[in-house]
Amino acid sequence: MKLIDGKAVAAQIKLEIAKEVKQLIDKGQKRPHLAAILVGHDGGSETYVRNKVKSCEECGFESTLIRYEDNVTEKELLAKVTELNNNQDIDGFIVQLPLPKHISEQKVIEAIDYRKDVDGFHPINVGRMSIGLPCYISATPNGILELLKRYNIETEGKKCVVLGRSNIVGKPMASLMMQKQYPGNATVTVCHSRSKDLVKECQSADIIIAALGQPEFVTADMVKEGAVIIDVGTTRVPSTETKSGFRLKGDIKFDEVAPKCSYITPVPGGVGPMTIVSLMRNTLLAGKKEIYQ
Amino acid sequence: MKLIDGKAVAAQIKLEIAKEVKQLIDKGQKRPHLAAILVGHDGGSETYVRNKVKSCEECGFESTLIRYEDNVTEKELLAKVTELNNNQDIDGFIVQLPLPKHISEQKVIEAIDYRKDVDGFHPINVGRMSIGLPCYISATPNGILELLKRYNIETEGKKCVVLGRSNIVGKPMASLMMQKQYPGNATVTVCHSRSKDLVKECQSADIIIAALGQPEFVTADMVKEGAVIIDVGTTRVPSTETKSGFRLKGDIKFDEVAPKCSYITPVPGGVGPMTIVSLMRNTLLAGKKEIYQ
Repeated sequence: MKLIDGKAVAAQIKLEIAKEVKQLIDKGQKRPHLAAILVGHDGGSETYVRNKVKSCEECGFESTLIRYEDNVTEKELLAKVTELNNNQDIDGFIVQLPLPKHISEQKVIEAIDYRKDVDGFHPINVGRMSIGLPCYISATPNGILELLKRYNIETEGKKCVVLGRSNIVGKPMASLMMQKQYPGNATVTVCHSRSKDLVKECQSADIIIAALGQPEFVTADMVKEGAVIIDVGTTRVPSTETKSGFRLKGDIKFDEVAPKCSYITPVPGGVGPMTIVSLMRNTLLAGKKEIYQ
Repeated sequence: MKLIDGKAVAAQIKLEIAKEVKQLIDKGQKRPHLAAILVGHDGGSETYVRNKVKSCEECGFESTLIRYEDNVTEKELLAKVTELNNNQDIDGFIVQLPLPKHISEQKVIEAIDYRKDVDGFHPINVGRMSIGLPCYISATPNGILELLKRYNIETEGKKCVVLGRSNIVGKPMASLMMQKQYPGNATVTVCHSRSKDLVKECQSADIIIAALGQPEFVTADMVKEGAVIIDVGTTRVPSTETKSGFRLKGDIKFDEVAPKCSYITPVPGGVGPMTIVSLMRNTLLAGKKEIYQ
């Protein structure tokens, strides 16, 4: 069994990005600039955005954080989105989700110029990904592809079971794994809450990508000997062993599944660190205008 | 075994549309108007477009056919697309594919205003479909959904194997069958040329949607007793029995597979007739501005 060290890969990629940014600057080009809009004070969102700003620094990007209180109106937020769309200095930006209930997330996402949509949530980017055209791929699926690549994990013709059909992980992951490219060319099965034969599907899978958000859902009996396991789950569960009073649990019952696998991602330290790094890679692409002019 | 009579369902839907159009006109509203651009004289394209124009008449739509010779430039074609985008009288339009090699199909597709893209090929419509938002769904997948609906075929929790991963059938079909709705909520597996266990996947499928374009690819041994079989294949094979000198063959070896099925679509007369009718349904939606303003 080989542990997929997302933390180490993420650190390595950040170094690679920083090096490329330095080269850009040396050539007199503009420093990539990421902006983030954060609404309210949700603990998780605060942490994510803080880490994104920190990663920008590590990569040599410029970053701008725009904060609003919970009572910001949809109109104000949309006006800011338009302003960022038109701001030539901003290469890409994100609106940290979730948003307060009185604001339509979908409306905000669709208001973002798809050429600056480094989160890859705009329908144009989602559609282009499905068709197989260059686009911003959303962070988590993109991070998983990168892990598969860096560990040279074979995917062609393999049976890949994706657990979960969320718009930000399950669906794009399935779409990517079936594309005519590496990593991809897999036989992809998407299972979800309504699936009757989920266990059987998992048992015949060469690769399982678990994104259900159900702690320790995948047990050893569901996994084939030698399978590759990618754990996207990060549920906070109470813990007396940590200072914070909680710990992160993945969708995989790690201790019993790990011995059966060829590769497995731990939680934390697997897919998680790759997510922010994927956003950084998209920001670099945006800065270099590699996908859209 | 029950034969899914696409021809009869298509005829029924055309009547329903014609009735609704009559009601629109009676209320003093505008007659839906579909335009089609046809480049060159490809036999298949000529037939499709002729049938589309004929279907428009049956539905009570206005239709406009715009023809170009093979040597039309990309620039001319794009100018026409822009003109149609801006023409208030045209509710929706299509550019019949394939286009001559010197014209980028993708560029033309993306030039179409997504609000008039009744073929559902624009990345925005593809992306919105994947996310589960209202959009124009492309004709063949939409026609298949309608057949499943009209025959009350259960899909929730069923194993649905999609054979083929084309942008116009396989991928959208998979995306639709996994959505949280009916028809959908299926466990979806996409198999293709690189799939190693295609036969095994088919053998455990409750529903097979075959869109490989390989005549009689699916044989009886690949099909579970009681399965639902949707045959999207329409390959022309030489025949001495028809006046035209060819006949259409599906991806399913019909004679041996049919006795094992609960439902099966014939070729011709199954999915084919539903395709044009789906375009008509999208045109009606466009005329009524039900999806986009």
